Amino acid sequence: MSDDLSRKSTETGAAVDRIAEFTAFRQRMNERILAEDNQVVRRFFALDTQTYKDGALDVKTKEMLGLVASLVLRCDDCISYHVAQCKDAGVKRDEFFEVFSVGLVVGGSIVIPHLRRAVDFLDKVEAGDEASSDAKPA
Amino acid sequence: MSDDLSRKSTETGAAVDRIAEFTAFRQRMNERILAEDNQVVRRFFALDTQTYKDGALDVKTKEMLGLVASLVLRCDDCISYHVAQCKDAGVKRDEFFEVFSVGLVVGGSIVIPHLRRAVDFLDKVEAGDEASSDAKPA
Amino acid sequence: MSDDLSRKSTETGAAVDRIAEFTAFRQRMNERILAEDNQVVRRFFALDTQTYKDGALDVKTKEMLGLVASLVLRCDDCISYHVAQCKDAGVKRDEFFEVFSVGLVVGGSIVIPHLRRAVDFLDKVEAGDEASSDAKPA
Amino acid sequence: MSDDLSRKSTETGAAVDRIAEFTAFRQRMNERILAEDNQVVRRFFALDTQTYKDGALDVKTKEMLGLVASLVLRCDDCISYHVAQCKDAGVKRDEFFEVFSVGLVVGGSIVIPHLRRAVDFLDKVEAGDEASSDAKPA
Amino acid sequence: MSDDLSRKSTETGAAVDRIAEFTAFRQRMNERILAEDNQVVRRFFALDTQTYKDGALDVKTKEMLGLVASLVLRCDDCISYHVAQCKDAGVKRDEFFEVFSVGLVVGGSIVIPHLRRAVDFLDKVEAGDEASSDAKPA
Amino acid sequence: MSDDLSRKSTETGAAVDRIAEFTAFRQRMNERILAEDNQVVRRFFALDTQTYKDGALDVKTKEMLGLVASLVLRCDDCISYHVAQCKDAGVKRDEFFEVFSVGLVVGGSIVIPHLRRAVDFLDKVEAGDEASSDAKPA
Repeated sequence: MSDDLSRKSTETGAAVDRIAEFTAFRQRMNERILAEDNQVVRRFFALDTQTYKDGALDVKTKEMLGLVASLVLRCDDCISYHVAQCKDAGVKRDEFFEVFSVGLVVGGSIVIPHLRRAVDFLDKVEAGDEASSDAKPA
Repeated sequence: MSDDLSRKSTETGAAVDRIAEFTAFRQRMNERILAEDNQVVRRFFALDTQTYKDGALDVKTKEMLGLVASLVLRCDDCISYHVAQCKDAGVKRDEFFEVFSVGLVVGGSIVIPHLRRAVDFLDKVEAGDEASSDAKPA
Repeated sequence: MSDDLSRKSTETGAAVDRIAEFTAFRQRMNERILAEDNQVVRRFFALDTQTYKDGALDVKTKEMLGLVASLVLRCDDCISYHVAQCKDAGVKRDEFFEVFSVGLVVGGSIVIPHLRRAVDFLDKVEAGDEASSDAKPA
Repeated sequence: MSDDLSRKSTETGAAVDRIAEFTAFRQRMNERILAEDNQVVRRFFALDTQTYKDGALDVKTKEMLGLVASLVLRCDDCISYHVAQCKDAGVKRDEFFEVFSVGLVVGGSIVIPHLRRAVDFLDKVEAGDEASSDAKPA
Repeated sequence: MSDDLSRKSTETGAAVDRIAEFTAFRQRMNERILAEDNQVVRRFFALDTQTYKDGALDVKTKEMLGLVASLVLRCDDCISYHVAQCKDAGVKRDEFFEVFSVGLVVGGSIVIPHLRRAVDFLDKVEAGDEASSDAKPA
Repeated sequence: MSDDLSRKSTETGAAVDRIAEFTAFRQRMNERILAEDNQVVRRFFALDTQTYKDGALDVKTKEMLGLVASLVLRCDDCISYHVAQCKDAGVKRDEFFEVFSVGLVVGGSIVIPHLRRAVDFLDKVEAGDEASSDAKPA
């Protein structure tokens, strides 16, 4: 194996780890919050999940709506979450960039640092997908 | 003509007038701004128009993205503008409410007053459409 | 009756009318929105109501929390609504100004125009209260 | 006097009235707020005034800083106030548009409706200035 | 000592360290900022401290106001600071969650990532309290 | 070399590394974004650069406008970027603090954590400058 390939593989591994860590913290804290005896908070979480279900608009469209809203409100965790959901719902790279372009023009240059991290996260998700498919047995 | 119908017709007329006034101010000030010798501002306006053109995503989807972004950033004029554009692009009432639901859940109850005005504007646009089609010769 | 008293009485009448108009629009649009077949939006409205119910914290404290949140997010309608709710829950004028002071210091001078309108609204609510009690039979 | 000149003069009069009304409300509410026995609020108002005094940076620069901050935070009253202050401090029309361009690019298209009203206000201020100088005795 | 207890104790230690680090940076930079010869900045810091003093409203209420304002404006450091102050002022866990519920409903799902970190911080503060009381001599 | 000097030199080295890392990520992601076939995003980036060019207002003034806008919108990366640009454009420490004072008063105490990091970054930039000039051959 060449040095270059080895480095790429290590980076992909680290990226997958960071996504895993991000997901683990989210899941652990969600459980902790939902275990609390506060009905308003619990109902809000349930409502949040319900919002993105298939309806008059399909899941893909709704997730893109969630992504652009997260972009203009500049919340990195929300952006990462919706990038992952969009990816699962079949949003393609050129479609991602059109969602990004709406967020950038509506929200302004203040969105740019979040856009950089969004693209970085998208790259990692895509690298993870490739890594997974590389690892599949023939 | 019954009193009730007459009142409704008057209200619709007033509504159409308010939309017309809103549109006239926007157009007059846009012309005034673009007449100014500032290339950055003029290019920004051109870019804003380009953003919602048909591409990897269609106009309808992009206008819904613009609408939800305007909702969570709570700009009434932007919301009205994108409601009108969405309507032109074929967004149906139940689809509008799903866009609204994403904006409401992401942006919170602070969005509610803007949602009220958005629905009021949508009603007026739809009333105007009906008024126009009522006025059409048989 | 002196001219000055007469003018004050007319102003109070106009103020009460504006509050009435504000309340009527809110109520009419809420009904319109809740009549729509969108479960997420309807549940959100129900949750919003539930949030300010008596619990571990009393209604007065929760309404002050709602007021300061509305102040720093700079939503005039939300501010007016919570000023009225706080008034009903027994918040006194010096307590209002301490809530305002937190909102002003956290949110900055950008809050000032909203503070002016909040104080104007509070004055109107208090004038309306006095007008009502003046109108009470001996 | 030609009809056209007459109409312009009437519009200018109305514009000057609106600016006067805006200024009167601000002044009346400021007095009302400062009459209240709340030291934090009063000190904040004093600090706000002190912020734009001549220092390491001159008044003109500081007022432009206040204007761009108001633009990106999208507060119409604050924008109008700083447009008037900038005008007094000698900011020229092409300089105004460069401040606007920074606000527009940093804050995004969501700033556009506020930019329209800012330019409209600037036009009124300039029309008022001309009206004043027209009225000066030879 | 069992492995599990040992791990818990280590985590608590790390948590206390992170809070200590957070506090140290805040204190160091505050000193650095206040050492600067800028009267507006220094007065603002003094005013910020004065805002939360006992008055018509007690410290506990004011700190909860500061917390909910920080939540809806989504500033993690401000949230952590006010969680710690609230804890010192006697806010109980179910009261914290009612403050959180107001912040969540007013501010929307965009607040959720900050809520996760707020609960994580609260857990750490409470773990630190227990660790401190465990460490007390019999 | 005394221990104290040695420690300072190490800290300065770490600071320079962090700035270098920050710059490298920004540059790498900008290249990645601009390599994408999305004309709106690319034009936005070009417009962003054009905004701060010398014009009716000089580069120094425009960069201070960009800095205060970034402060009140509370974006750390944008603040760091404009602090560095301002420094290059000749903004002096007392001028920086007057820009900070406008941002703080307009944006409120929610800006304070960003102000701490801004001052920390400014200190590092200045330490780096000194380190560079120390390293210059006699």
